[in-house]
Amino acid sequence: MSDDHKQKMQERQAKQRAKVAELQDPEKGLVLIHTGAGKGKSSSAFGVIVRALGWKQKVGVVQFIKGKWKTGERQFFDRLGEVTWHTMGEGFTWDTQDKERDIAAAQAAFAKGREMMESGDYDLIVMDEINIAMRYDYLSVEDVIAGLDARDKRTAVILTGRDAKPELCDYADLVTEMTEVKHPFKAGIKAQRGVDY
Amino acid sequence: MSDDHKQKMQERQAKQRAKVAELQDPEKGLVLIHTGAGKGKSSSAFGVIVRALGWKQKVGVVQFIKGKWKTGERQFFDRLGEVTWHTMGEGFTWDTQDKERDIAAAQAAFAKGREMMESGDYDLIVMDEINIAMRYDYLSVEDVIAGLDARDKRTAVILTGRDAKPELCDYADLVTEMTEVKHPFKAGIKAQRGVDY
Repeated sequence: MSDDHKQKMQERQAKQRAKVAELQDPEKGLVLIHTGAGKGKSSSAFGVIVRALGWKQKVGVVQFIKGKWKTGERQFFDRLGEVTWHTMGEGFTWDTQDKERDIAAAQAAFAKGREMMESGDYDLIVMDEINIAMRYDYLSVEDVIAGLDARDKRTAVILTGRDAKPELCDYADLVTEMTEVKHPFKAGIKAQRGVDY
Repeated sequence: MSDDHKQKMQERQAKQRAKVAELQDPEKGLVLIHTGAGKGKSSSAFGVIVRALGWKQKVGVVQFIKGKWKTGERQFFDRLGEVTWHTMGEGFTWDTQDKERDIAAAQAAFAKGREMMESGDYDLIVMDEINIAMRYDYLSVEDVIAGLDARDKRTAVILTGRDAKPELCDYADLVTEMTEVKHPFKAGIKAQRGVDY
């Protein structure tokens, strides 16, 4: 084994040990990704919000959503009044007539999320459907990673949406993929209030 | 093609069409399973509860949980006071000293769930971790399917827990598997308040 190789391996080991030590810190907020084509990416983030609120933690949400329609989660948390909630420009849809306007809206929403992440005021921040904004290049994955890296380290962040970028998955502490195992009559099941939105 | 085969195919087609028609009924409550070794099985069920409450739907939970420790979701929904909540006998753990007592506790919890499913009072019922009770043969999958089949058809039911029985997956309308794609320092990450419980 060359000295050069040995040194590389030692560096790698040191880096890995530092990462393990960092993760063992109970005060560290993790970066979690919910992705995949199955159900449950956003709803499990809302479930984690419920858990966090149960422990009296402070929670923020930025929703990079597809459209302006009412959702059950928004109505619930509005009524509850305990979660700081930002939704990207009303009327926004991903199949847009004005791409420049939509890019500006996505970037403004992320700027808000970044401000919240850096503030140190939050135990948990959910960036709902942000992976879609990256998939359409409305946000660059480099900017999102830079924002996560600049966050207050006690703040956990959940990023949801299908097609999470590989670079983001590399950066994250934990990636969960939701897979549809059985959906035999997909065309036949309409989205339902409560279950789906 | 033989007449016999033709008849079989026609029967199958008729059955499938009937199933599609049934699922297109917006009033039909679906049977959903959240399984797999990844995170998000229970938390996405709690997220669906939030959605349902946002639409002023009536929700019940039966928790077949592993232990008596406090969870964020329980504290949150207790405080909210809008969800009918039953937790299987306090102090229950799956590695038990008294298997007969634990079987009785699991069956009593399911009897409660069955009563709720048949009542017609609920839009959504979550049977949290019930798949574990079946995995340990504390409940038979036949009894659970019979209970689901006897439910008021407008009631949606979510059954969570890893290792969902194949017969139950066959019966369900939709099965989602949560898979851990990345958890590189698993041993290093401790369960955290808010995110994990």
